[in-house]
Amino acid sequence: MRTITTVVAVVLLAVGSSAQSQPRLNLMPMPASVQQGTGQLAITQGFSVHMAGTGDPALEAGMERFLAQLSRQTGIPFRPKAGAAPTLSVHADRGLEAVQKLGEDESYQLTVTDSGAQLTAPTTLGALHGLATFLQLVAITPNGFAAPAVVIKDQPRFPWRGLLIDVSRHFIPLEVLKRNLDGMAAVKMNLLHWHISDDQGFRAESKVFPKLTGMGSEGLFYTQAEIRDLIQYAHARGIRVMPEFDMPGHSGSWVIGYPELASGPGPYTLETGDPIIDPTREETYKFLEKFIAEMAKLFPDAYFHIGGDEVDGKQWDANPKIQEFIHAHGMTNNQDLQAYFNRRLEKILTKNHKIMVGWDEILHPDLPKSIVVQSWRGQQSLATAAQQGYRGLLSYGYYLDLMWPTARHYAIEPLSGAAATLTPEQKALILGGESCQWAEWVTPENIDSHIWPRNAAIAERLWSPPDVADVNSMYARMEAVSLELEYLGLTHNSAREQMLERMAGPGDDSALRVLADVVEPVKDYKRWDESKGPIDFHAPLTRMIDAVYPESETAREFRGLVEQFVHSGYKDQAAEAQIRSWLILWRHNDAMLQPLLKQSALLEEAVPVSQNLAMVAAAGLEALDYLDRQQAEPELWKTQQLAVIEQAKKPVAGLLLMVVPPVEQLVEASGTPK
Amino acid sequence: MRTITTVVAVVLLAVGSSAQSQPRLNLMPMPASVQQGTGQLAITQGFSVHMAGTGDPALEAGMERFLAQLSRQTGIPFRPKAGAAPTLSVHADRGLEAVQKLGEDESYQLTVTDSGAQLTAPTTLGALHGLATFLQLVAITPNGFAAPAVVIKDQPRFPWRGLLIDVSRHFIPLEVLKRNLDGMAAVKMNLLHWHISDDQGFRAESKVFPKLTGMGSEGLFYTQAEIRDLIQYAHARGIRVMPEFDMPGHSGSWVIGYPELASGPGPYTLETGDPIIDPTREETYKFLEKFIAEMAKLFPDAYFHIGGDEVDGKQWDANPKIQEFIHAHGMTNNQDLQAYFNRRLEKILTKNHKIMVGWDEILHPDLPKSIVVQSWRGQQSLATAAQQGYRGLLSYGYYLDLMWPTARHYAIEPLSGAAATLTPEQKALILGGESCQWAEWVTPENIDSHIWPRNAAIAERLWSPPDVADVNSMYARMEAVSLELEYLGLTHNSAREQMLERMAGPGDDSALRVLADVVEPVKDYKRWDESKGPIDFHAPLTRMIDAVYPESETAREFRGLVEQFVHSGYKDQAAEAQIRSWLILWRHNDAMLQPLLKQSALLEEAVPVSQNLAMVAAAGLEALDYLDRQQAEPELWKTQQLAVIEQAKKPVAGLLLMVVPPVEQLVEASGTPK
Repeated sequence: MRTITTVVAVVLLAVGSSAQSQPRLNLMPMPASVQQGTGQLAITQGFSVHMAGTGDPALEAGMERFLAQLSRQTGIPFRPKAGAAPTLSVHADRGLEAVQKLGEDESYQLTVTDSGAQLTAPTTLGALHGLATFLQLVAITPNGFAAPAVVIKDQPRFPWRGLLIDVSRHFIPLEVLKRNLDGMAAVKMNLLHWHISDDQGFRAESKVFPKLTGMGSEGLFYTQAEIRDLIQYAHARGIRVMPEFDMPGHSGSWVIGYPELASGPGPYTLETGDPIIDPTREETYKFLEKFIAEMAKLFPDAYFHIGGDEVDGKQWDANPKIQEFIHAHGMTNNQDLQAYFNRRLEKILTKNHKIMVGWDEILHPDLPKSIVVQSWRGQQSLATAAQQGYRGLLSYGYYLDLMWPTARHYAIEPLSGAAATLTPEQKALILGGESCQWAEWVTPENIDSHIWPRNAAIAERLWSPPDVADVNSMYARMEAVSLELEYLGLTHNSAREQMLERMAGPGDDSALRVLADVVEPVKDYKRWDESKGPIDFHAPLTRMIDAVYPESETAREFRGLVEQFVHSGYKDQAAEAQIRSWLILWRHNDAMLQPLLKQSALLEEAVPVSQNLAMVAAAGLEALDYLDRQQAEPELWKTQQLAVIEQAKKPVAGLLLMVVPPVEQLVEASGTPK
Repeated sequence: MRTITTVVAVVLLAVGSSAQSQPRLNLMPMPASVQQGTGQLAITQGFSVHMAGTGDPALEAGMERFLAQLSRQTGIPFRPKAGAAPTLSVHADRGLEAVQKLGEDESYQLTVTDSGAQLTAPTTLGALHGLATFLQLVAITPNGFAAPAVVIKDQPRFPWRGLLIDVSRHFIPLEVLKRNLDGMAAVKMNLLHWHISDDQGFRAESKVFPKLTGMGSEGLFYTQAEIRDLIQYAHARGIRVMPEFDMPGHSGSWVIGYPELASGPGPYTLETGDPIIDPTREETYKFLEKFIAEMAKLFPDAYFHIGGDEVDGKQWDANPKIQEFIHAHGMTNNQDLQAYFNRRLEKILTKNHKIMVGWDEILHPDLPKSIVVQSWRGQQSLATAAQQGYRGLLSYGYYLDLMWPTARHYAIEPLSGAAATLTPEQKALILGGESCQWAEWVTPENIDSHIWPRNAAIAERLWSPPDVADVNSMYARMEAVSLELEYLGLTHNSAREQMLERMAGPGDDSALRVLADVVEPVKDYKRWDESKGPIDFHAPLTRMIDAVYPESETAREFRGLVEQFVHSGYKDQAAEAQIRSWLILWRHNDAMLQPLLKQSALLEEAVPVSQNLAMVAAAGLEALDYLDRQQAEPELWKTQQLAVIEQAKKPVAGLLLMVVPPVEQLVEASGTPK
């Protein structure tokens, strides 16, 4: 028996008035049109799916994956009777194109009755989406697994719904990308933006310039065969793959093997600052001619991302030849030089039948209207671009690495702000958006939990009509899709468990879970700010901050309880009882947790976080006592508690204690007559 | 927010007197000799491993796997400094044999100091075991990950330490077998007994007799390339692979494609009873000559298992020609006929340089002493065999599918009972044993949780000295190895989570976990008995009974608490407080759980189990009240409670409520003066 035994007491209380009934359909993204019928289609061992029409092998393969996933979700090994009518019949007018195009018809119609289901779509692409919807319809019921009777007519709001994965800062192996592609397909995202080179690593094999990966990847890169494999894997799932070769900035990994590309004197290593490409030498363009010709063949998609962001001009400033070039060509500054570079680059791309995509900074009237601007800065950039006739993509507000709560991402509307005032024609230039998983702070182990399930809500924002915006419904549906994603092989939940167990070692770690459940990593660029000096990209990412979820579900629910209690004029006793249970748990937890925290070098930094939780919980309990007694609290007490709370609000070890603000509400309210 | 909110209150109480200090070394199997030193070897990013000596590529590959696993366990990406001395130096005198032999030297010596570690072994086999031990030595400490200073001299007690996996009743895909091989290597098991054919499916491709799998496998089989792949995978990990082609019984899958082999009239299907092979026809031996010649080449191990168990003689009895043959050859019964068959079979095996292994029933003085008898019946069979000069293996007591608690397997000693009285020479004929995972009730999804972590304790019984027998130490170390196994990719914990979530659907399922934590599946062959009629091997295995662990850790701890409380003369207040917390939790749980149980067809059968838990917990709480008041309980009360308890002891839905007997102790004791 263990030295410490944990007795878990579960107190479950029905929440009264504010409780919402769960949506009956756990669909995410919510379809454009859903009409619910009566009855349900039972999913039994006899379930079968049949294709009518095209005979597209891509659809056939999609149906096989669909069956395998339905079998995983339900645990049913299907054994349809020979000759029986198919349960689900699927028809697509046209098969998958060899290279998927932007704006293809992705619509589908799905009808489920108690005797069968029919899925029809103009394209295999739409049929694949319909299969994904069917998987989400199936739920456990008192009569077994079933899909409710429903008529769904669905198509996306935006044609470009992407996820950027940075594989440079930390290398992400192919199988991790593949399971993320499965996740994307489940929520109908249709583009992987493969951020495949940056200062910290060049990850795509070039046979023409082998020193790119040879010297710039520490051996961690994808071979061309692997790249083709991934593209094929994505294509089978209706997902385009667009590479990003970031230049002229963020190109530190290029110049280790090819220092002649750099604007400053070499030699370079992966640890050398941020060298940038020299746009003034003709050799640079000769290099890019060959390189892009090679990559254009490797990546079949029509769009090709050249980065173009955050060009740090120091090396250009420091190089007299470059400055001379700027003046000699009648340019006034580094921005003009970058525009010159982009024009040259755009011509090379066009020659290779590629359309240029780049970040906000590439926007320049000299570039043709065919280019696409991806905005990390906001809707204003998109509006400006659209007004000039350029197409745009929103990524501002969709940066998953900034650790925002899902609701905050969910509220980001591509056509809001400056974009709201655009004409319909201009609005049509906004193609959609992309969530972004920058990889400074993720490894193959925890990347899934940084992307999922929050990414599903962004996928909904880009697919569903804009009036699908109820936050409670979103959270409830996201919880269901999170389960589905685990069955697909994503590790967003299981990895957290393993990471916590690693920190705690064998033995009872339930007290650690109690703490982990109420903290979140610091937001935005706070972690960057707090890491003194340059980031060590080789350091282990095994701290509490690396393991905990970006958003605390417990804190969100606790906040809801406190709001409910406050809105009831402190009269809702059920809510108060639950608040009290939580606070008792948290007040006790530190005493149990301290021995564990102290026995692990990985947990020691969380000691003050756990102490803060106990102190804040104690303050909350006392506040409730004052409220119950309808007694004004002593001023001194209040001052002291608010000081404790202020202290507990400060991040420690990069962790935010998310239950502090609602406790503060209680302390502020205490003494208020009930 | 959810309709029901769960507030989890964790009450942690230090257990006083009876608490054992955790073993400092979480090794399993425990080595033959361990001398602990002072200090520890820090595991940092600079960690490196270097091979001195042989240059055996198999050891090199083993070291790479070791590094990858150490990196997974610690989360540290290793980056040793060029030129720095290796942290761990490994030396093996001899490399891996092309085909591993029974009884090879598996010893190793591992010395860890605060400045480095040395592993030496006569063979790569031993060195691989030493690496597995090193992985278990590494633990999180206040100063980071470290291995304690230690001198380990280790070798196995028995040379044959196997795990049987039945892949016929349910097909188990190659990758599931591979992760189980990883688990076996981690606990130093050295033989996979691949039960590859049985009535329900013939799983090994034969090119000579393609209808074996063509008609007898429903398409679920291993190609010869896959078989070679698995053997190579096992070989790299120091694990032999022995196939079992069960005959003449358990051969229903053979005769579908080759009905001429059967003792009764065909045609047959996978659903047809249990046809058995006809040993009286010369054509049978012609078939086996060719078949065994083919399989002998495919499986390089010297040992070849022919099954031989449970020959149901009905078909022989019913066939006049067979009965005539028996009389004509001076035999008296079916047993004689099986012995005749085995003699013929043994000759074919010998011709193919294979040693015959079979179950108890093959033991017959006409067979040469070279054969090996595997006992599913008990030590008596082994003793009888050894007295006649035959070698033996114990599997009795190691059947993982019987759902025994680990301690019961752990107590099974191969050289006990009838075997204890053998001479040393006879004892030496007992080569070891095998745990067995028969697959009537497992799927790829839950097989890991049926095998692990209990199998680690059986592995220890077969490796470690017999005096390594402390049950508390075993459970504590098994918990640590269970974590290690999850890092290796085994899914014994994560699969339970997924299965419970499948039953419950999205939403809060903590109340379901409370129930799942205190039940166990029925034991022995009770599940077989309870399934009316023949087992449907295609049915989903998605019930509670399929998801819960074979042994309830919560119940084990609760039992310990009650024992501690009883032994203290009902005075141990800390223990009583914990018992009370558990009982309160369980009494409350049913009210929370009922709505969930009723919304899921998969959970409905557990309704009475949950109700029983609540009633038993209420009885326990009342018993504690009587004990506290030192008041004799009314006779009527006691009678009623014991009736409730009797009712709750009965399995429902194949589930045993494991906390009933300790509550019964409390009820029986209540009224006893404190």
